[in-house]
Amino acid sequence: VRERLAYNFSISAGGTLKAVHFDGSVFSLTDTPTPAPAQGEALIRVKEAGICATDLEIAHGYMSYVGVPGHEFVGVVEQSASGGLAGRRVVGEINCPCGSCDFCRRGLGRHCPNRTVLGISGRAGCFAEYLTLPEANLHLLPESLSDFQGVMVEPVAAAYRIIEQIGPLAGMSVAVLGDGKLGLLVAQAVASDGAQVCLIGRHPERGRIVLQRGIEFVEFASTRSSQLIRAFPVAVDCTGSADGPSLAMDLLEPAGTLVVKSTVHRRLRLSPEHLVVDEINIVGSRCGPFKRAIRALQLGEVDVDPLLERSFPLERAVEALEYAARPGVLKVTMTVC
Amino acid sequence: VRERLAYNFSISAGGTLKAVHFDGSVFSLTDTPTPAPAQGEALIRVKEAGICATDLEIAHGYMSYVGVPGHEFVGVVEQSASGGLAGRRVVGEINCPCGSCDFCRRGLGRHCPNRTVLGISGRAGCFAEYLTLPEANLHLLPESLSDFQGVMVEPVAAAYRIIEQIGPLAGMSVAVLGDGKLGLLVAQAVASDGAQVCLIGRHPERGRIVLQRGIEFVEFASTRSSQLIRAFPVAVDCTGSADGPSLAMDLLEPAGTLVVKSTVHRRLRLSPEHLVVDEINIVGSRCGPFKRAIRALQLGEVDVDPLLERSFPLERAVEALEYAARPGVLKVTMTVC
Repeated sequence: VRERLAYNFSISAGGTLKAVHFDGSVFSLTDTPTPAPAQGEALIRVKEAGICATDLEIAHGYMSYVGVPGHEFVGVVEQSASGGLAGRRVVGEINCPCGSCDFCRRGLGRHCPNRTVLGISGRAGCFAEYLTLPEANLHLLPESLSDFQGVMVEPVAAAYRIIEQIGPLAGMSVAVLGDGKLGLLVAQAVASDGAQVCLIGRHPERGRIVLQRGIEFVEFASTRSSQLIRAFPVAVDCTGSADGPSLAMDLLEPAGTLVVKSTVHRRLRLSPEHLVVDEINIVGSRCGPFKRAIRALQLGEVDVDPLLERSFPLERAVEALEYAARPGVLKVTMTVC
Repeated sequence: VRERLAYNFSISAGGTLKAVHFDGSVFSLTDTPTPAPAQGEALIRVKEAGICATDLEIAHGYMSYVGVPGHEFVGVVEQSASGGLAGRRVVGEINCPCGSCDFCRRGLGRHCPNRTVLGISGRAGCFAEYLTLPEANLHLLPESLSDFQGVMVEPVAAAYRIIEQIGPLAGMSVAVLGDGKLGLLVAQAVASDGAQVCLIGRHPERGRIVLQRGIEFVEFASTRSSQLIRAFPVAVDCTGSADGPSLAMDLLEPAGTLVVKSTVHRRLRLSPEHLVVDEINIVGSRCGPFKRAIRALQLGEVDVDPLLERSFPLERAVEALEYAARPGVLKVTMTVC
């Protein structure tokens, strides 16, 4: 095996590459050893990478992760285990399951207890010149999609996870709380499934981004009026705040469903009266279907272009992370090559 | 209508009866006006009533209820709107829906926003000599069941609600956290559906109550060992504590389901990492199917007799409520006539 790996990794084996590193307290740009692809893995040269709220939560201790962060990327395969993907532009699913445990056998590979997760758990991420991923995780990015659209496949897939879990939503009223990056994607994904979507946020100008998709925008302050309270069968918390799930739950009618997408590193507080008396259903929601996300981007069901706030070169990664952490900032990316 | 009511209420119209009254701060035994049955309602003479944790939560502000509490009872119909039930021993469902709203039309009468709830919301309860309920809410209690078993139909039905919501559970491992009244009923109900039940509590002697039903008992302290952590696909919180749902969630494997039954009047605190990363499903659960509960008691699927701690006459209702509020006390009832 070692021979095969050495052979398969002729470009930069033993060399170093530029990567962002989180040491448990700060992010810094460092030279780190080039990752060695394991059997069945490809070596990918990163073209562009997106900064996600989860990356910023890592700085607050999320998943106790130490290493190279980043999990939204588009890249070009430099070395392919099978040979077939070399030179192709790809995006990649971030969960790497063991394939043999009980969860994997039940089709729940994303919940494999032995998994690594790109830039989040046990596997160096994409804020780097190169990364490795199992080829089984890779999807070709159609030529019609831009690099930035490729970067957005992962978060768009996370938005479509909601429909896998509680869909179909055709004809249903869905409240999406939070008009940040995730909220704007979730609102569009849910609307593409036929739901009547009410996006609730603090930035009316963002309502205009999604207006043409039939999505209603309501400014946050007015949601405390009785008009909105407990009127929705489905509400999705995309606030990224520890109070978000409770506020979203207040929007639900009895027997309604609350989807929680935010991975904040603080404890949620929820009213048990509303939960139990109204028999609310709460669904935690994480990673989603890449194929559906790519199709949504191809069909224009989800428009991600208005979400690009600013791009920085990898050399200015620390500045990019600081910029992305500012309140009200949309998607920040790092261009790598 | 008024003539009909007056006719239908010849026994005690204009009179008074003994009842427990909660004035927003204390419980007291008072003489209150005898309730007048509305159209379609029966007047029921209460035989025995059970004290539920919800009644004690009312003292902490639950549902902001003021009035006669109590919702677990067995009684004899004194006057029947249809005439058919007079003299029969009955138990009664506690939610009284309007029958014409959107929720009622969708078969969600228990969530009707216009509903009254016996002893909990807008309708005098059963800690009294008489109560009124719509005849549609009443179920005949089979002669083979004792008065105490009749009192327990409502909480047993609440236990079977879990199976309505997330069943069938045959062959599944289910953790039931809390060995109080509710936990002992839930463990038995879930076991009767074929689940392998692990009851986790602080009272090993209660494990013996349910041992013969194949239910394993684990003492609470040892649940912090890695052995139990995240091993169950389903966990039910029956602790009645604000920390219970979080502790029960820690017992779940990824993609597991947490059922929350306790209606505590404090906010729950939950880990969003576990909820979102492990895509946990949380289900609030309240009132359940009376017919199934009566059948379970008839078949001996659920044995409630070991749960009776002590009975007090209605005249000593305040003492009964104080006694029921002591830690570790099982079911306390009031015998009325």
